[in-house]
Amino acid sequence: MTMKIKIINPNTTQSMTGKIGEAATNAAAPGTEIVTVSPPMGPPSIEGHYDEVFATLGVVDEVRKGEAEGFDGYVIACFGDPGLFAAREIARGPVIGMAEAAMQAASIISEGFSIVSTLERGLVGSEHLVQRYGMQAKCRRARSTGLSVLDLEVEGSNARSVIVDECRRALEEDHSDCIVLGCAGMADLCRHISEQIGAPAIDGVTVGVKLAEGLISLGLGSSKRRGFAYPLPKDYIGSVSGYAPGPRH
Amino acid sequence: MTMKIKIINPNTTQSMTGKIGEAATNAAAPGTEIVTVSPPMGPPSIEGHYDEVFATLGVVDEVRKGEAEGFDGYVIACFGDPGLFAAREIARGPVIGMAEAAMQAASIISEGFSIVSTLERGLVGSEHLVQRYGMQAKCRRARSTGLSVLDLEVEGSNARSVIVDECRRALEEDHSDCIVLGCAGMADLCRHISEQIGAPAIDGVTVGVKLAEGLISLGLGSSKRRGFAYPLPKDYIGSVSGYAPGPRH
Amino acid sequence: MTMKIKIINPNTTQSMTGKIGEAATNAAAPGTEIVTVSPPMGPPSIEGHYDEVFATLGVVDEVRKGEAEGFDGYVIACFGDPGLFAAREIARGPVIGMAEAAMQAASIISEGFSIVSTLERGLVGSEHLVQRYGMQAKCRRARSTGLSVLDLEVEGSNARSVIVDECRRALEEDHSDCIVLGCAGMADLCRHISEQIGAPAIDGVTVGVKLAEGLISLGLGSSKRRGFAYPLPKDYIGSVSGYAPGPRH
Amino acid sequence: MTMKIKIINPNTTQSMTGKIGEAATNAAAPGTEIVTVSPPMGPPSIEGHYDEVFATLGVVDEVRKGEAEGFDGYVIACFGDPGLFAAREIARGPVIGMAEAAMQAASIISEGFSIVSTLERGLVGSEHLVQRYGMQAKCRRARSTGLSVLDLEVEGSNARSVIVDECRRALEEDHSDCIVLGCAGMADLCRHISEQIGAPAIDGVTVGVKLAEGLISLGLGSSKRRGFAYPLPKDYIGSVSGYAPGPRH
Amino acid sequence: MTMKIKIINPNTTQSMTGKIGEAATNAAAPGTEIVTVSPPMGPPSIEGHYDEVFATLGVVDEVRKGEAEGFDGYVIACFGDPGLFAAREIARGPVIGMAEAAMQAASIISEGFSIVSTLERGLVGSEHLVQRYGMQAKCRRARSTGLSVLDLEVEGSNARSVIVDECRRALEEDHSDCIVLGCAGMADLCRHISEQIGAPAIDGVTVGVKLAEGLISLGLGSSKRRGFAYPLPKDYIGSVSGYAPGPRH
Amino acid sequence: MTMKIKIINPNTTQSMTGKIGEAATNAAAPGTEIVTVSPPMGPPSIEGHYDEVFATLGVVDEVRKGEAEGFDGYVIACFGDPGLFAAREIARGPVIGMAEAAMQAASIISEGFSIVSTLERGLVGSEHLVQRYGMQAKCRRARSTGLSVLDLEVEGSNARSVIVDECRRALEEDHSDCIVLGCAGMADLCRHISEQIGAPAIDGVTVGVKLAEGLISLGLGSSKRRGFAYPLPKDYIGSVSGYAPGPRH
Repeated sequence: MTMKIKIINPNTTQSMTGKIGEAATNAAAPGTEIVTVSPPMGPPSIEGHYDEVFATLGVVDEVRKGEAEGFDGYVIACFGDPGLFAAREIARGPVIGMAEAAMQAASIISEGFSIVSTLERGLVGSEHLVQRYGMQAKCRRARSTGLSVLDLEVEGSNARSVIVDECRRALEEDHSDCIVLGCAGMADLCRHISEQIGAPAIDGVTVGVKLAEGLISLGLGSSKRRGFAYPLPKDYIGSVSGYAPGPRH
Repeated sequence: MTMKIKIINPNTTQSMTGKIGEAATNAAAPGTEIVTVSPPMGPPSIEGHYDEVFATLGVVDEVRKGEAEGFDGYVIACFGDPGLFAAREIARGPVIGMAEAAMQAASIISEGFSIVSTLERGLVGSEHLVQRYGMQAKCRRARSTGLSVLDLEVEGSNARSVIVDECRRALEEDHSDCIVLGCAGMADLCRHISEQIGAPAIDGVTVGVKLAEGLISLGLGSSKRRGFAYPLPKDYIGSVSGYAPGPRH
Repeated sequence: MTMKIKIINPNTTQSMTGKIGEAATNAAAPGTEIVTVSPPMGPPSIEGHYDEVFATLGVVDEVRKGEAEGFDGYVIACFGDPGLFAAREIARGPVIGMAEAAMQAASIISEGFSIVSTLERGLVGSEHLVQRYGMQAKCRRARSTGLSVLDLEVEGSNARSVIVDECRRALEEDHSDCIVLGCAGMADLCRHISEQIGAPAIDGVTVGVKLAEGLISLGLGSSKRRGFAYPLPKDYIGSVSGYAPGPRH
Repeated sequence: MTMKIKIINPNTTQSMTGKIGEAATNAAAPGTEIVTVSPPMGPPSIEGHYDEVFATLGVVDEVRKGEAEGFDGYVIACFGDPGLFAAREIARGPVIGMAEAAMQAASIISEGFSIVSTLERGLVGSEHLVQRYGMQAKCRRARSTGLSVLDLEVEGSNARSVIVDECRRALEEDHSDCIVLGCAGMADLCRHISEQIGAPAIDGVTVGVKLAEGLISLGLGSSKRRGFAYPLPKDYIGSVSGYAPGPRH
Repeated sequence: MTMKIKIINPNTTQSMTGKIGEAATNAAAPGTEIVTVSPPMGPPSIEGHYDEVFATLGVVDEVRKGEAEGFDGYVIACFGDPGLFAAREIARGPVIGMAEAAMQAASIISEGFSIVSTLERGLVGSEHLVQRYGMQAKCRRARSTGLSVLDLEVEGSNARSVIVDECRRALEEDHSDCIVLGCAGMADLCRHISEQIGAPAIDGVTVGVKLAEGLISLGLGSSKRRGFAYPLPKDYIGSVSGYAPGPRH
Repeated sequence: MTMKIKIINPNTTQSMTGKIGEAATNAAAPGTEIVTVSPPMGPPSIEGHYDEVFATLGVVDEVRKGEAEGFDGYVIACFGDPGLFAAREIARGPVIGMAEAAMQAASIISEGFSIVSTLERGLVGSEHLVQRYGMQAKCRRARSTGLSVLDLEVEGSNARSVIVDECRRALEEDHSDCIVLGCAGMADLCRHISEQIGAPAIDGVTVGVKLAEGLISLGLGSSKRRGFAYPLPKDYIGSVSGYAPGPRH
């Protein structure tokens, strides 16, 4: 079965988009065409609610264009799952948030996980998602490494060892059995971390690709009743007028 | 004590902004200057997650400008509380979401409330907020009237009686003691509804004004530690580059 | 708008009533008349469930008298919110519990708070309130300073620095962004604590005054349907016969 | 093993105290001495938060006296469990609330129960207890019969058939497997109801007697650490000065 | 990538095993070898906790043998997910419960789902799983069709239309956007139901196959720390002595 | 009142069965006949989900036989409450799980408890039960001593002091007021532990005996509606065919 999946890095940092695309492509099945993009506008990293507002614009724009381009499904490659519900409204096929995907996988292969993330200020965002996805009994703690998102892009930095150390502390102190990586920028480190800590580490981008492939192959897309029904056609004004949802034929 | 509060109608429908402004001004204390705006861009009504993405852009833009204009606090006048957390990041003073405000008031004056809202497709948004604000034990049900947001703006329509009827059903069937009005467009009907149903009806816009006044007068604004800390300075690219958070002096 | 609000210190310690009254008066709007009382009977401090039973008697008695005296609203100035629901049954206007008020304010200006209180034995009471008010996701921890309520009344004691130290630990260890002061006897320290710790500290008495003013000005009082309906008229016997609820004309 | 258990009817209606006492005595083991009392002061029935305040005074007074009289344990025979935590503070042995006891038994013998109670205004009280006792997943609904507490004391009334009918509706509509009787005044009807509906009906008074006997025989009483530690000695003033907790020798 | 997945129908009804196997095979990727089995012992259908005890024995036996046979992962094809945690202890690779899989998929493609199941007595089992998987906010109701499991195996019965009718009622009355089929015996009806009701219907067997394929291809298996660590080696006695976990080399 | 209660040690270690039987017999009322058994097949200790599957078989077999032998009720003497719901389906009288019993007692005599258990790998099982029984607000932590179940059977080991030390840490660090012993093998240590730590320690076996006695004497057994209705008659095949539920006359 052939299919086209769009991976959207909601931030504009091309080196991260490259890493994400490589991880996604490696994970994809033979018949799957993976296209990885970042929006042409927005923040270089998402480290708070304000950054997220502008990144969300890019996400929904990429899904909007993706529908015209014939994509069968989408993965949002930022741990905050920005724009997830709006994207599901405009997409025919499934839209996967990497955080939701990673937590679902973690709840299958373990009885408790820790999230290991970047800056402390982002933890409340993770905690909101844990609550929204009903993972309170499974997620034992969300942890910060103190690294910024772009620290992960610096060649030769100690980011890798800082993350491994925090993952080890998580297993020990939180009584967790598995680690959910809390940033798409860690996608390339997943296998290394897992080997170092002797327990599964989960990257939501690659899990998202497999979930999207699975749902698409079963013909399961966003339900168009009630919650994720297509936007009602209406005119928008001003700088966003081009995004107005038109009538569906 | 004098203070300036900006009321932001996240949609672009001026007649609704007018009604909201009138209700807010009537509710304000003598020394309070109320300025009510809608953004220059965005959807005319917010009826789903997709609309909300673009309305949110307008909300944070108005708060951003408001900080430069010297506002002491803000009320977001749409029942979905769009952009609430991002707005709190960039505001020095308090930012009130009308849904959070209304539910807090309802939980003080009653032991259980129903939300009476517009279209059925918006109910899941209300249910998310109920969960986010910890109101599961207080909110007995979120109900739809089947009215669109702009039906409320049509002179001579039967919207008023449709809403009153739904509120009556809510009191009877949900065992609720009070009604939370689920749309800023109902602000002008609040007193009428309350009189007709013989129980309190709560409009979050006016409650939001009083909450904002109260917190401002006590010197309580958005905590700048962790969750609502100012955005980190960084460059944005493309059409949103003008919104990039600069350094704070 | 002029209004009369009664602040009820449920314990009988006059020095604390004085402090509470001063804080409340300072917080009130120009047209608000603040009257602060303690009941003529009851315990000098409330440090457990047993003390609370007798303090509650005083609270409802003060509200009962307050209705005859023409008060428009009430604030219960003890962090356990004793007698809150009974008071709402007999009051026409709003009745604010300082704990509920403080937690609501904290959930607006921060993404997580700690309660800093007096004796360890009182923490379970705070935890019950956190659960009753749906604040489990917002309250990160209830903490004890080890101080008794009346330690706060001793001139020249180190209570102030003990509290500031515990607040600092809360911010650091609990990942909280703001502090809710867990005793009405700390009302006078609120500004000092906030300055020392560099984050908002919230005193529920003053927040309660502003909430009461706001709800009164909007005409919102205790719903008289179901949960807070007036007590049914009946005869009481023995030493409490004078409190029997009579018929309402 | 011989023991003395005090059953406290928190209201002052002697006919109800008689019924409760008879049910308790029938349930007790041979060596158990049952003493059933109502306080000398308070309301004739508890139908709201205000009534409960005054009934609570009587409950704690009876436990206070009971400790001097050498009772080994207590059952509070009103479905609101008034004064339960305060009573546990002053009692050495176990104090059982009939609502907690009934819900615990129901959660052992069924996978879901309904509470069938008296007036609609009391249902919120039952819902609070369901939440406090962690029974949200077990209690499928709290229902009102519309009967007042004292309707149950009227000879020849149709109260019995009204209750049976409501219990039948509960089994059918709520998908419940068992009924928790929501008023101590129904203690004498328990067996009759159970026979009529063909499913277990549970009266918390008798379950409370068995729980008290069981805990006493195992030497398990109220933990005197933290939550239920004895009240701190202090002076009370005014009409309640006689209740002041003294020093413990 | 080639892999071997064992689908375990925990009951012994071969016609159902056949249907399940056909659905699983159709869903599998080209390189996946699907083997579908029922245990050689156990009940013909699982309609209660007692049946489940014996079916569980068969499930763990099949996983135990599967490990020796070189399977890479497992799907438990009964909506009660019997033996799921025990299977995860003994399996190297992932073990998917069809109920967990179906609910995860439903929570991605909709904002609320209903479970449509067989006999009423099984609903409490579904409700337990909803709670265990943290799906309380997503699952709006578990519904019974009144059909027994084996009714689904009767050629020419009206089971199909009974199920479709119940699904329609669920969409209408529960405000659900999608249906989770609550029995593996409905696997062959999934597409038909979905077409008839105009909304997604989800069969957990096929979703389970895709999830297993995805996790296996990413190298994600049951974490061997703590919760799902291999059983400790010990001797069992009596009729189950052959199942004793031996030492791992 | 005379009655027969069967205590089932789900593991096959006779020394533990002996200890449990002694504790149960000491706790029983004069007219109660206590019979304590372990199944003739199964694991010598239950330390994980896999062991539990086989122990469950033994539990339901003992209850099945017990019904024929005329027992009035049952206590399952393993802290995982294995087979509890299945046993309730086939038993006429009450079936008590020692974990549920212990947690219920702890929630009566304290405002918060810790579970002190054996191996770390078993803690997730305890956490599941805490959630299933709605004890999240009462159970402050489940703790491991690192002891295996059979360590408790070794004469002269330091198990006793290891447990006492962990209980002391629990009281101190978890802010708990009472200890729930997390293994039936600690039944004989209960009084000793309680004396050493100066706070109540609860053994669920003895509490279970008293609960069973109480419910039996009140005529309260497993509700035969819906959730715990008798198994439907059907044929089982293979090695478990002898357990097939027959028709009820």
